[in-house]
Amino acid sequence: MADQYDVIVLGSGPGGYVAAIRCAQLGLKTAIVERENLGGICLNWGCIPTKALLRSAEVLHYMEHADAYGLVAAGEAKADLGKVVARSRAVAKQLNQGVTHLMKKNKIAVHMGTGALTAKDRIKVTGADGKATELAAKHIIVATGARARDLPFAKADGERIWTYRHAMTPKAMPTELLVIGSGAIGIEFASFYNDMGAKVTVVEMVDRIVPVEDAEISDALAKSLTKQGITIHAGAGVESLKSDGQGIAATIKMKDGKSAEHRFSHCIVAVGIVPNTENIGLDTLGVAMDRGFVKIDAMCRTNVPGIWAIGDIGPPPWLAHKASHEGIIAAEAIAQALGNKDVHPHAMDVTNIPGCTYCHPQVASVGLTEAKAKEAGHEVRVGKFPFIGNGKAIALGEVEGFVKTVFDAKTGELLGAHMIGAEVTELIQGYTVGKTAELVEQDFQETIFPHPTLSEAMHESVLAAYGKVIHI
Amino acid sequence: MADQYDVIVLGSGPGGYVAAIRCAQLGLKTAIVERENLGGICLNWGCIPTKALLRSAEVLHYMEHADAYGLVAAGEAKADLGKVVARSRAVAKQLNQGVTHLMKKNKIAVHMGTGALTAKDRIKVTGADGKATELAAKHIIVATGARARDLPFAKADGERIWTYRHAMTPKAMPTELLVIGSGAIGIEFASFYNDMGAKVTVVEMVDRIVPVEDAEISDALAKSLTKQGITIHAGAGVESLKSDGQGIAATIKMKDGKSAEHRFSHCIVAVGIVPNTENIGLDTLGVAMDRGFVKIDAMCRTNVPGIWAIGDIGPPPWLAHKASHEGIIAAEAIAQALGNKDVHPHAMDVTNIPGCTYCHPQVASVGLTEAKAKEAGHEVRVGKFPFIGNGKAIALGEVEGFVKTVFDAKTGELLGAHMIGAEVTELIQGYTVGKTAELVEQDFQETIFPHPTLSEAMHESVLAAYGKVIHI
Repeated sequence: MADQYDVIVLGSGPGGYVAAIRCAQLGLKTAIVERENLGGICLNWGCIPTKALLRSAEVLHYMEHADAYGLVAAGEAKADLGKVVARSRAVAKQLNQGVTHLMKKNKIAVHMGTGALTAKDRIKVTGADGKATELAAKHIIVATGARARDLPFAKADGERIWTYRHAMTPKAMPTELLVIGSGAIGIEFASFYNDMGAKVTVVEMVDRIVPVEDAEISDALAKSLTKQGITIHAGAGVESLKSDGQGIAATIKMKDGKSAEHRFSHCIVAVGIVPNTENIGLDTLGVAMDRGFVKIDAMCRTNVPGIWAIGDIGPPPWLAHKASHEGIIAAEAIAQALGNKDVHPHAMDVTNIPGCTYCHPQVASVGLTEAKAKEAGHEVRVGKFPFIGNGKAIALGEVEGFVKTVFDAKTGELLGAHMIGAEVTELIQGYTVGKTAELVEQDFQETIFPHPTLSEAMHESVLAAYGKVIHI
Repeated sequence: MADQYDVIVLGSGPGGYVAAIRCAQLGLKTAIVERENLGGICLNWGCIPTKALLRSAEVLHYMEHADAYGLVAAGEAKADLGKVVARSRAVAKQLNQGVTHLMKKNKIAVHMGTGALTAKDRIKVTGADGKATELAAKHIIVATGARARDLPFAKADGERIWTYRHAMTPKAMPTELLVIGSGAIGIEFASFYNDMGAKVTVVEMVDRIVPVEDAEISDALAKSLTKQGITIHAGAGVESLKSDGQGIAATIKMKDGKSAEHRFSHCIVAVGIVPNTENIGLDTLGVAMDRGFVKIDAMCRTNVPGIWAIGDIGPPPWLAHKASHEGIIAAEAIAQALGNKDVHPHAMDVTNIPGCTYCHPQVASVGLTEAKAKEAGHEVRVGKFPFIGNGKAIALGEVEGFVKTVFDAKTGELLGAHMIGAEVTELIQGYTVGKTAELVEQDFQETIFPHPTLSEAMHESVLAAYGKVIHI
């Protein structure tokens, strides 16, 4: 007979393992199925190890600019690529072990192997040894995530054509690197390899980089990266990509319509994701899809009762923190469905999900861009404040960037906040707290932001929207 | 006849110059009087230049630990004290010029000289050349700030006994440094000089360092600083301090009641402040005081109509951002008093003022400590989350510290938040926004904090208070 659980979570990324923990906290008998590494892509091959790489690049940047801080280095600072990567892998390993510990502590049954739904309440797990185990549960949370999308004309081979995964464990340092796609992943690697000394070119199909961000952010980032030596071709496309013994030949069609061949040593393909929805039984069970992604409601229910979906196999944004938050919502909704009257799950509101890009300078945002706010019919009030007007930024030597806020002119509601500059990935939470609680301009204006901090620029941006900016 | 203004601001620190700008924005004819440097202590000798010094120390720290990030430095990293100080002074100069520009841009009349009230609507300004000018105004905002308190038995001489001001422009590097007082100023210099290579001893009368902070923060900081090589004597007092050609002899009475003489090369006295309330006419005009500080209401009014007070000459906390915020409140209240019906000043609530200490690790807090919350009669729910459970902290190599949140058990209101660790001075604003808007635990729980960021620890701390913590 199959092992019986209240909940089985299929996939142990930041959506799955968080869902499993919350289920266990709520007293549900919980199992989790993972085919590769506990923690999924995020911990092992995504968010976390890239941040470790970028931290090394950041420190290298400081060392190279020691003189600007009144410091004397005896000689040139260099990165040992092998050690930088080893540190990143050690960080991933530590996090992976952390999740293992959390599963144990919360008494979650871990089934390593490839899982697939054989019925709406059954999962078959096939282990590395080929042995199959049958698990049964009242509810199943599908959290199988996504993988990098390949180019139609060139598959990543790990030699010269890389996905994020190869880019994280390079066998050799690229000399001339082509990055295809300028979303968060593409831009972070472009920034990292540029800091490490590679000559980097970014090609983006849309007419501006980081296209989900506010247009002014895209412009500022493009200027900054260009100044740092990165070549950017926006509104351009790669038409062919060929790897030979010497490197890569890429035919790039530029904005003006002209195509030409360019050579690179390596290429990172970062053109989006494909959800892992195949071969896990979803189609057989009639789970509804939307353009390849599973359709869910605000409580993460699919159309099939008892089957829930969270994270990258569902609708955008495809971000780890969205997956984790959905994990909590789904777990609480399941507990409620199973009769727990003390739990009160809340519905997901995707307009309150922040996004971060850890290039240098950093980019962070939440809510609507100015253009999207206008498209949605809002009359807007916009404030902007540059970090050059911020004392802490000057003291840090990090004066690049600005904070832009978009308010509804009628209600004063914060519709969106857009930041570029030092530490903005850590700053955006203040706006996110406020936006989630539907605060208005007055709330932000009356908040006393500590001095001297970069966060004062957040205050000034709001003041600027209302004609009260002080430091400019 | 005296020059006639709507408002004269006496003192151009972060309280005064911000008040003047806001007055000017509101169409008031405004003058500002400054005896030394536009921008006051904060910009020229306080918050800003110390942050510049600490930034150099931070970068030095990274260079010394390059290996941990997979980087190779060709030789030993060193600080050039002269250059570090010169950078700090250049930063201060830039900010000072910024304020000069802001005064000009806002058409604020700047009167350089020592000002004093000769009537409740008159100020006499005596310039460096001894010439006096008489100014008149409907309203006067007094923003003369404070100065370092001397020890009763030893005056700072700038040679071996220093105030913050001498510590900021050292003629020589201290070898053994005694820091008396462990508030923000004392601890920041202790941290800076320790990072720069001095052997540092901190003496604090209260039985724990950073005594305004939550007790658990004090304990954690003491442990960390001790580990970094700083000697801490809490519950101890300096009984005598003598400077001779060779250094300083200090008699320190320890917690156990025993006194002994210790020798140091230099000493920084950071035992609090004295408000600059003398010789500016306040006593003659009958302005009410409370233990030496000017008494004000929540709109910064003194008891004398037309005289307002902001910043360090008023009640605690004596922080730059409190002064600036009071400057805005006072300016708006004056505009309202002068008939402007479009301005709606809000009352100051000191429980929403965050505090930051820029040592390493950083400390930041807002609202009530756990002990104060209980003293105030609250039944509390407390959450705590350590940075070792945070992926970004691990990726950064900054796992020290934790986030503690204190909620009212009955209402769920956030009463206080207390943080120690990397970048917490930038993080505290999220709690401050929420606390100012009187948000409750649920608001913070439902907020999606971006991954991977240190700010996720803020979410987890709230979850921990309600039995829902994930990553521990």
